[in-house]
Amino acid sequence: MGDSRAIGVFDSGLGGLTVAKRIMELMPDERVIYFGDTGRVPYGTKGVQTIKKYAIQDERFLLSQNVKMIVAACGTVSSVAADTGENLPVPFVEVISHSVKDAVSQTKNGKIGVLGTPATIKSHAHKNLILKLSAKASVFETAAPMLVSLAEEGWCTPDNEIARLTVCNYLKDMKSAGIDTLILGCTHFPVFKELILEVLPDVTLIDMGVSAARYIKEFLNKNNAENRDGGEHKFFVSDKPVTFEKTVKIFLGESGENIKIDLVDVEKDEKGCN
Amino acid sequence: MGDSRAIGVFDSGLGGLTVAKRIMELMPDERVIYFGDTGRVPYGTKGVQTIKKYAIQDERFLLSQNVKMIVAACGTVSSVAADTGENLPVPFVEVISHSVKDAVSQTKNGKIGVLGTPATIKSHAHKNLILKLSAKASVFETAAPMLVSLAEEGWCTPDNEIARLTVCNYLKDMKSAGIDTLILGCTHFPVFKELILEVLPDVTLIDMGVSAARYIKEFLNKNNAENRDGGEHKFFVSDKPVTFEKTVKIFLGESGENIKIDLVDVEKDEKGCN
Repeated sequence: MGDSRAIGVFDSGLGGLTVAKRIMELMPDERVIYFGDTGRVPYGTKGVQTIKKYAIQDERFLLSQNVKMIVAACGTVSSVAADTGENLPVPFVEVISHSVKDAVSQTKNGKIGVLGTPATIKSHAHKNLILKLSAKASVFETAAPMLVSLAEEGWCTPDNEIARLTVCNYLKDMKSAGIDTLILGCTHFPVFKELILEVLPDVTLIDMGVSAARYIKEFLNKNNAENRDGGEHKFFVSDKPVTFEKTVKIFLGESGENIKIDLVDVEKDEKGCN
Repeated sequence: MGDSRAIGVFDSGLGGLTVAKRIMELMPDERVIYFGDTGRVPYGTKGVQTIKKYAIQDERFLLSQNVKMIVAACGTVSSVAADTGENLPVPFVEVISHSVKDAVSQTKNGKIGVLGTPATIKSHAHKNLILKLSAKASVFETAAPMLVSLAEEGWCTPDNEIARLTVCNYLKDMKSAGIDTLILGCTHFPVFKELILEVLPDVTLIDMGVSAARYIKEFLNKNNAENRDGGEHKFFVSDKPVTFEKTVKIFLGESGENIKIDLVDVEKDEKGCN
């Protein structure tokens, strides 16, 4: 039996590809339909009402693609707009709760850091959930808005001096606080892993994509909703900027080399208005 | 007689306030209606078709406000989407041509630098116009995408080490080329003036807002379209992010302290669809 429909994944831009990649690696038989809102990226520096409006449009587009599940592969949407996924006709997966469970189970000294966008950090979504699971944990939060722009630009490797200085600046307080576990609370941030581990070499990094993919695999298995018919992934974006191909490769790695990506207008509503 | 309608000014975000400010300073009797597309900022890293679509929506909104003129206070729109202003029912002013005239008349060694967004630099809008006015000029162009994010974040002053490193990086080639005049080809960039002058102390900076404001004053005077009835400025944005008030102050200075700003949805078309 199973369910051969695709898993719908969306993000403000291309950072969510880090989550899509984890899903594809862990569940090679599943099909992914990805939407990246590159025409309006970034979300995390914007206001909550705007983020909710965009999330609803993104979800509506994925539903039009007949997906069996919608994954908000975006820390910002998961933090401040997860309610937009509550009444969808398919299961909705956000990326906060599973990563928080992993962080709480992996920390030894109880000091957990959260790096996110301004909207995510202001919501305290990770922190509130950590303290619910472990009352004696200490949480250190830092908003790191510039990392989204740097990642979309491809300035994220240890040889980039501006990326290094920015990462050092954002991690300064967590370093002196002595965290042993760090949640990368924005799906753009895994591309900075190498650089972050140079600044905080003994820290366990929690990649929200890894945690979410593991949950999704369990969920599909439990609900007998796995894809047994194969098929191809599809990728959609709302804008194709100049640096697009380079950026896709940054987030998706070598597997991003030959993927086909279509442009789509999600601002249109059901009536075809713009 | 005159014309008491307001001057409409729009930009991808809040950078265009640097142009609005020049207009207000030079023409204290004029009213400005400003629209900043903060819900979709930045434009300059996005594709041309997306930028044109956004520009048309921005212009449509300003027309609904009964303005007597529309100013694209955005280097990116002026470079790649100036054609969207061609058939408007009111005069359209872009910010490239007037700044280029000023640069060509002020350079002594004929070496002119242009700092812009990736979309602007790829269009060569400034360069092509400079070479039309002065065949023996040499033009040095650099795309500086990160400066828009840094400016909207308020990281633009000489005491910010990341801003300094980023500016130094972008100006490196122009410095060794020996330019004597630099066009700030994005309306977000005047906030980096102080920092740029530390890196290139002998360079004449061309602020597109200054050039455009001078042209607008002449145009209104020649057409007997000046406002003689007074009235108030109005400011609209498509999103109010967390750091909003701080950022307005960065671009508008002290005069930005008490201005009232309204939120508006420009994605809606005339039929009220979203």
